[in-house]
Amino acid sequence: MAAQQLPEFEHPRKAFGWAARDTSGLLSPFNFSRRETGEKDVAFKVVYCGVCHSDLHMIKNEWGSSIYPLVPGHEIVGVVTEVGSKVENFKVGDKVGVGCMVGSCRSCESCSDHLENQCSKMILTYSAPYLDATITYGGYSDSMVADEHFVVHIPDALPLDAAAPLLCAGITVYSPLRYFGLHNPGLHVGVVGLGGLGHMAVKFAKAFGAKVTVISTSPNKKNEAIQNLGADSFIVSREQDEMQAAMGTLDGIIDTVSAEHPLLPLIGLLKPNGKLVLVGAPERPLQLPVFPLLQGRKIVAGSGIGGMKETQEMIDFAAKHDVKPDIEVIPMDYVNTAMERLLKADVKYRFVIDIGNTLNPTSN
Amino acid sequence: MAAQQLPEFEHPRKAFGWAARDTSGLLSPFNFSRRETGEKDVAFKVVYCGVCHSDLHMIKNEWGSSIYPLVPGHEIVGVVTEVGSKVENFKVGDKVGVGCMVGSCRSCESCSDHLENQCSKMILTYSAPYLDATITYGGYSDSMVADEHFVVHIPDALPLDAAAPLLCAGITVYSPLRYFGLHNPGLHVGVVGLGGLGHMAVKFAKAFGAKVTVISTSPNKKNEAIQNLGADSFIVSREQDEMQAAMGTLDGIIDTVSAEHPLLPLIGLLKPNGKLVLVGAPERPLQLPVFPLLQGRKIVAGSGIGGMKETQEMIDFAAKHDVKPDIEVIPMDYVNTAMERLLKADVKYRFVIDIGNTLNPTSN
Repeated sequence: MAAQQLPEFEHPRKAFGWAARDTSGLLSPFNFSRRETGEKDVAFKVVYCGVCHSDLHMIKNEWGSSIYPLVPGHEIVGVVTEVGSKVENFKVGDKVGVGCMVGSCRSCESCSDHLENQCSKMILTYSAPYLDATITYGGYSDSMVADEHFVVHIPDALPLDAAAPLLCAGITVYSPLRYFGLHNPGLHVGVVGLGGLGHMAVKFAKAFGAKVTVISTSPNKKNEAIQNLGADSFIVSREQDEMQAAMGTLDGIIDTVSAEHPLLPLIGLLKPNGKLVLVGAPERPLQLPVFPLLQGRKIVAGSGIGGMKETQEMIDFAAKHDVKPDIEVIPMDYVNTAMERLLKADVKYRFVIDIGNTLNPTSN
Repeated sequence: MAAQQLPEFEHPRKAFGWAARDTSGLLSPFNFSRRETGEKDVAFKVVYCGVCHSDLHMIKNEWGSSIYPLVPGHEIVGVVTEVGSKVENFKVGDKVGVGCMVGSCRSCESCSDHLENQCSKMILTYSAPYLDATITYGGYSDSMVADEHFVVHIPDALPLDAAAPLLCAGITVYSPLRYFGLHNPGLHVGVVGLGGLGHMAVKFAKAFGAKVTVISTSPNKKNEAIQNLGADSFIVSREQDEMQAAMGTLDGIIDTVSAEHPLLPLIGLLKPNGKLVLVGAPERPLQLPVFPLLQGRKIVAGSGIGGMKETQEMIDFAAKHDVKPDIEVIPMDYVNTAMERLLKADVKYRFVIDIGNTLNPTSN
């Protein structure tokens, strides 16, 4: 590799973060660089960054698309330090966030429909080739720069640390609740799995005015689901009696489980015309029984994050309705331990790295 | 069995049809009886009855729910011979039809929403216990009686023989085209499988103003699909190049295939937010890949027939837009041969039994 192409020197602005170097996924301090703030760019000091389960997949190249060295992080919040000459919506000092994407074609049908997340040229926030062919680096780092189109405002009413996970976990559940009509008050919404996504689904569904039932394999999550998160009821999915009693009662389900799991019992929980929305991504195909779909004109759908307009709308809704993730704030040098705990689902419910106070070159 | 419970004597009105007696599925002449015309009942002379693929499953008890002797037929058309004192919408001489159901609770949420087909107490037109606990008999018979709520008018513009298959095959594809928004003009709709359901899906989608692509395993159906049925294009599903070229081009797909088949290539044909609607019922679960659903917020759904209000709407639409199934009219005593041909998909595209001219006690 020629010297000018080293991450540390390919751009003019020095940057520092933690990167994975290989499929061990071990993260360690990493010097790299960021581009000059372009005329439509917003540059910001990163203050917090959420730890998403997909970070764990990506640092180990479990989806086959990782480019090393890899700086993860796509739940990034901070404070604006510089804006380009043509930036219209941001100024220095603003609290801002960047989620899963930093670019798209801006001209296709998806982009015109405010669904940049569906653009075939969508650029991921890390480990993807940017417009200038350099590789994107995520938010486990001291600074960030992005086209203002892919930056959102964080209202004062939202604490910055709690705002971070909204940028991926939040929009991932908010968007399908809206799109599939599960935000109408008075509906009965199920949430399968009570992790980073699931607990946000409970909170948003409650804020929309739904009755919420959590479906989980773990009986010991019942108190947590009802007393802490505000769910109305709880079903242990392995308990046939409980599942049977709830058959045909749900208008929709947000299924956040990434492991292989049976769909038939979940389809059974739906009312006629009910909607089972998958937001987790099992690696292997699931078994889809067709008869139960036909009988009740039911839907199994997938949904992934959301467009930028909707992401801002979600953030504003969260601020207005006090929807905040439950987080465990960790120092940067705890991240490898956090990844081990995340693998065991040992977190309530999202790790957020305190970048502002704990990431510095001397932490190396 | 006591004499008064024999099918021939359990009701006061003599009736004659063809019934299967066991899982051989062989149909043969059968004397039974029908109830007196109740105050809300419409009685009619059966003139034609379509042969649905589910008749084939039912005569052999392949779905496990058959009650013998079994008179099949749920695409029934005829001319009214008698109406009850409280019948409001029909009179003697009217051309009428009965489809897949003859009863429902009339009070649940589904019934209130004109979705009697989703009522948990929905009563099938044949081989099901009716309100009086006697077993229902279908349209392979000389006469029919049903509550007027489950009877539709057949407009003069529709030939009676061609109207018959609309009552099951027609509504089965019309309803999801409407419900899933695939009836909006200018959309690009795919139809998988070119049998009784598939050919109706092509015709309705064309009548709605869609561009229609047929996807089939059989290259030799291409001319038929385009020249006879009016499809705009044709893809051989086994040809990788053709499938690849069509990736991401369809707003929705009506998948009529009952055999096991891969969903992944079909999901790939959909645009973002596209809808794959299954109306065939494979016995075993299909493999559902989740990632492709997430990426484009795609839907896999099921749909089965439709409510009575929509069935009348579909019939009226067909009459207005000259949507007619392609049929092969057969005499009653050809029905066992027809079943053998149906099993081999050797029919373009629906057998319709000429009950009026060919069913008589002497045909025994």
